[in-house]
Amino acid sequence: MTNLSSTFSIEALVRKELPAFKPYTPGEQPGLSTSTIKLNTNENPYPPSPKIKEAVEKVLESGVLRKYPNYHGRKLQELIAKDYDLDPNQILVTNGSDEALRLLFQALVGPEDVVVAPDPTYSFYPVLTEQMMVGATYKAVPLKDDLHFDFDSLTKEKGKLLCFAHPNAPTGVEEEKSKLLNLIKNFEGIVLSDEAYIDFTEPNSSLVSEIKNHPNLVVSRTFSKSYALAGLRVGYLIGSLEVISWIRKLKDSYNVGILDQVIAEVSYADKEYFLEKRSLVISERTKLKKELESLGFEIPNSSTNFLFCKPKLGVSPESLYLQLKEKNILIRYFSTGISKDYIRITIGTPEENQTLIKTIRGLI
Amino acid sequence: MTNLSSTFSIEALVRKELPAFKPYTPGEQPGLSTSTIKLNTNENPYPPSPKIKEAVEKVLESGVLRKYPNYHGRKLQELIAKDYDLDPNQILVTNGSDEALRLLFQALVGPEDVVVAPDPTYSFYPVLTEQMMVGATYKAVPLKDDLHFDFDSLTKEKGKLLCFAHPNAPTGVEEEKSKLLNLIKNFEGIVLSDEAYIDFTEPNSSLVSEIKNHPNLVVSRTFSKSYALAGLRVGYLIGSLEVISWIRKLKDSYNVGILDQVIAEVSYADKEYFLEKRSLVISERTKLKKELESLGFEIPNSSTNFLFCKPKLGVSPESLYLQLKEKNILIRYFSTGISKDYIRITIGTPEENQTLIKTIRGLI
Repeated sequence: MTNLSSTFSIEALVRKELPAFKPYTPGEQPGLSTSTIKLNTNENPYPPSPKIKEAVEKVLESGVLRKYPNYHGRKLQELIAKDYDLDPNQILVTNGSDEALRLLFQALVGPEDVVVAPDPTYSFYPVLTEQMMVGATYKAVPLKDDLHFDFDSLTKEKGKLLCFAHPNAPTGVEEEKSKLLNLIKNFEGIVLSDEAYIDFTEPNSSLVSEIKNHPNLVVSRTFSKSYALAGLRVGYLIGSLEVISWIRKLKDSYNVGILDQVIAEVSYADKEYFLEKRSLVISERTKLKKELESLGFEIPNSSTNFLFCKPKLGVSPESLYLQLKEKNILIRYFSTGISKDYIRITIGTPEENQTLIKTIRGLI
Repeated sequence: MTNLSSTFSIEALVRKELPAFKPYTPGEQPGLSTSTIKLNTNENPYPPSPKIKEAVEKVLESGVLRKYPNYHGRKLQELIAKDYDLDPNQILVTNGSDEALRLLFQALVGPEDVVVAPDPTYSFYPVLTEQMMVGATYKAVPLKDDLHFDFDSLTKEKGKLLCFAHPNAPTGVEEEKSKLLNLIKNFEGIVLSDEAYIDFTEPNSSLVSEIKNHPNLVVSRTFSKSYALAGLRVGYLIGSLEVISWIRKLKDSYNVGILDQVIAEVSYADKEYFLEKRSLVISERTKLKKELESLGFEIPNSSTNFLFCKPKLGVSPESLYLQLKEKNILIRYFSTGISKDYIRITIGTPEENQTLIKTIRGLI
C-alpha cells in the first residue's frame, strides 16, 4: 500500500473536459450595502411585492422551516398553471431559471448533438453546451445587421436543441411571434424560448399559449427580473407534460426551499403591484432611451428592462464602461462579437437614470 | 418543410440513458399543516434558531432581495472556515448537500469510471452515478453482519470516487476515524465523507480536520438536520483549494439565495441554541432506543438522529410501517437489501416519541 498524499494529482482525476471548460461570467456583484448604482445585471430597480413580509413571518412562525419543502413547488405550479390553462405538472419550478436551462440541457444534449442559437444571445447557452462534457457542438447563427434573428439561416439548421431569448439579450430586441412559431414548427429538435424578460414587452408576446400546438416548445421564466426577486432564486420551465416529465427526472429532490416557494407565490399573486412596477420600468425605458439618443447613442427598440447602446463614433464602449465604474456606476460590457461595440444598461429608478445621464454627459 | 406536431417523439430526443434512469425517491412529504407525526426524513423535531426572525426582517427591509446574491455565500464560507482554520475558498456553499454531491459527481465521474460505496448507505449515490449518463459503474460493497463497513473489502476496491455517509445512513452506525483515514489514504481516487449527521455524534468525529493531510478527501455537510433547516436548502462541500476550485466551475452562478445565505449564517453562529437542541435529540435517542429495545427491537448504536430498528421475529417491518402510517405516524421503510428487515425512525420530540411507542405497543 502506498500513501497517496505526496504524489496525488487532482487534475488527473477530474473529467478530462473540465480543465478547458470556462464557466459563465456573471455581472459584478459589489457588496450589498454599497452606494454603487448597479445597472449591470438587469435587476429590477423597485423592491419586490410588499406582501412578502407577512407571508414570510407566517412561515417562520409556523416552524415549517425545519421540514423539507414540497418537491415540486406545488402551489406555485398551480398558480401559474391556472393563468395559462395548463396542467400544474407542465410547470417545473427551479432554483432560478439557470437550473431550468441546465436541466433542459442535461436531459437533451448528448454526444455529437448540436445546439443552435442566434448570436449574440444569453451567453449561458454555449457554456451549458460545453458543461455537458459530451463533445456537443454549439452552432451560433449571427444576427442580421439590424440585430434581428436571421430566420432564413436559423430555419436551415438542424440540431437537438434550439435556444433563443425572447426578447433577446443583450440586444433587447423582440422578434415577431409568427416568425418564431414558423421557426419552431420547422425545427427537428426541442426549442427553448427563454422568456426572462417577457414581462417587459406586450402581454401577448409570450409563446406559452403556443405550447399546446408545438410539442417541441419549452419556455423558461424567472422571478429575478420583473418580480424583483433576483436574490431569491426561483424560475420555472413550461412545456408539454411529456417533455417536462423527462426533464424532472434529473432535478434534485428538494431543489427549491420553502421560503423561496412562498415568496414566489405571494409575488406572483400580487398582480396589481407587479403591473404598476412593470409600467414604471417601461416608461423609464422610453425616457432613458430618448436621453441617451440625444447624447449620440444608437439604440435598438428594447422590449426588456435594459438598453443595448452603441456610443457615437469616437467613444469607446469599453472605456465608457470603465469610466462609469470609476464613478460608481456599474453597467455591462461584453468584449466579444458585435457586443464589443455596445454597452448594456439596465433601466434604473428615475434618479439613477438621471445620475447616469449626467455622468455620461460629463464623460463624452 | 414539414409540420412536426403530428409525428414528433420526445422520447427519441432525450438522452438515450434517460428512459431507464430511476430518480432518487425521497421520503413522503405530507402537507405542511398536517397533524401527521413525521419521523421519516430525519428532520429535526425542534425549530431552527430563534435569531432567524430578526435577520430575515433585516433582509426584507433592506430591499436587497431584488439584487442577485453573492455568488459564493461569502459570509457563510468565512464563518465555517474560521471554525476549522481553513481558507474560505475551501468551502463550496450549495443548494442543499444534494447539490454538493451532484457537483462532485459531475466533476469526477466520466465514462467507464467506477464509484465505490458501502451498501447500504445513502441511496442517492447510485442514483447520481446513473444520472451522469456516462455508463459509470457503481460498486456496492456489503456491510458486515454487524452493520459496520467491510474495510478489508473496501480497501481492495479501485475507482474514481469512494462515497460513504459518516455516520452511515440508514444504519446510524459510526466507524472509527482511524479506520476511515486508513481507507482514504489507500484509495486511489477522491473520497467523500458525507457528514449530514455528524453533529449528532462526538464533536471530534468529523474528518474535516483531516483534509489538510488527505488531498483526496472531501466532506459534505448540510443545514437540513442538525440546524433544523430542511426547508431552507443549504449545504456545503469542504476540500482542498484545488479540488473545490474544480468542482466550483460546474455550479450555477447564483446557486444559493440571499435569504438562504443569511439564515444559514445566523443559525451557524448561534452555537448555544444549536448545542442545546443537539443534546435534547441525543438524550431522546438514548431513551427511545431503550424503549424500542424493550419492545423487542434490535437496534445498532446510533450516532445520528434516527434509529435503524429490526422488529422481533414475526413482526414484518413493512406492515409495521404501513400500520403506523394508517395511524398518522410516518417512518421510513426501504424495501431492498438488508434494509428490508428494518424500519428507520427519526428521533422526534419527547411527546412524538411517546406516541410512537404507545402506538407500536398497540400494534405488535
